[in-house]
Amino acid sequence: MSVLEIIKKRKSVRKYREDSIPDESLQRVLEAGRWAPSGKNLQPWKFIVVQDKSLKDKLAQAAAHQTFIADAPVVIVGCGFPEHCYAKMGRYMKSWPVDVAIALEHMMLQACEEGLGTCWIGAFREEEVKPILNIPPHVKVLGLTPLGYPEKEPVSRGRKDVEEVVSYDGF
Amino acid sequence: MSVLEIIKKRKSVRKYREDSIPDESLQRVLEAGRWAPSGKNLQPWKFIVVQDKSLKDKLAQAAAHQTFIADAPVVIVGCGFPEHCYAKMGRYMKSWPVDVAIALEHMMLQACEEGLGTCWIGAFREEEVKPILNIPPHVKVLGLTPLGYPEKEPVSRGRKDVEEVVSYDGF
Repeated sequence: MSVLEIIKKRKSVRKYREDSIPDESLQRVLEAGRWAPSGKNLQPWKFIVVQDKSLKDKLAQAAAHQTFIADAPVVIVGCGFPEHCYAKMGRYMKSWPVDVAIALEHMMLQACEEGLGTCWIGAFREEEVKPILNIPPHVKVLGLTPLGYPEKEPVSRGRKDVEEVVSYDGF
Repeated sequence: MSVLEIIKKRKSVRKYREDSIPDESLQRVLEAGRWAPSGKNLQPWKFIVVQDKSLKDKLAQAAAHQTFIADAPVVIVGCGFPEHCYAKMGRYMKSWPVDVAIALEHMMLQACEEGLGTCWIGAFREEEVKPILNIPPHVKVLGLTPLGYPEKEPVSRGRKDVEEVVSYDGF
């Protein structure tokens, strides 16, 4: 499938089968994130692959009690390094959330190509997530996603018309 | 090409040919952004397609004088709506930069599939960019990219090893 087809096919999956993920698929998903662009190619990120059931359960609780997260065989947690960016980029230090977001989205697109489902989780209490995974104080958590085979194909939620979101030569 | 192949092929292009872009290609690029996921599907974004030479020149000046930006036939400016998110999401209002980043990156991946080059530009003075395009006070500028045919294939800058950026069940 083309990139545009994958982009349109990707939807938030909130119900997962228990089936484990082939390691080749997981590695290609991670590879898609690893090759993301970042400000000055700093790659100010780390991705934690969580497979332990008890850790997944705790993450789900810290993420507004969205228990479906723990049903997926894998949860990927995307972390960023603000200090790393600040040291190298000064006023442009704010690039790390953009960088980590892009890398996580790359993973989700590749997951879709692998027949796997994902779901952007931005609703979580960072102060609860960090101790679960021993994430140090200077590291931020940008987002996370479950990763697994969808129980069923989710319904598309549609989008605004292109005329509403695109303009030419001015706002 | 597969998503992973496109992801690996995409590189920052800093030298563009003057050739114009077929409208079908431009529309598919915009479509790739329009279908991006966003927190609560709010789509808190607007994308300004800049083709006017004088506006492109001004944008390049506001973007740390990176004059190559104005050489591309098109510049796409990605804007976000923080208030929109805040009204609907409360404490999770910070999703708009992630949302806009994902949409812009979708466009850049689709651009690559179209044989077009792009370059993430995060180094710009927002207070200078906004008046150029009549962007209202409540709207933020997340990033921009030139869009056009590359003068030549850029060299890959490589990435950190997977062992450095991925860990399992803990930081």
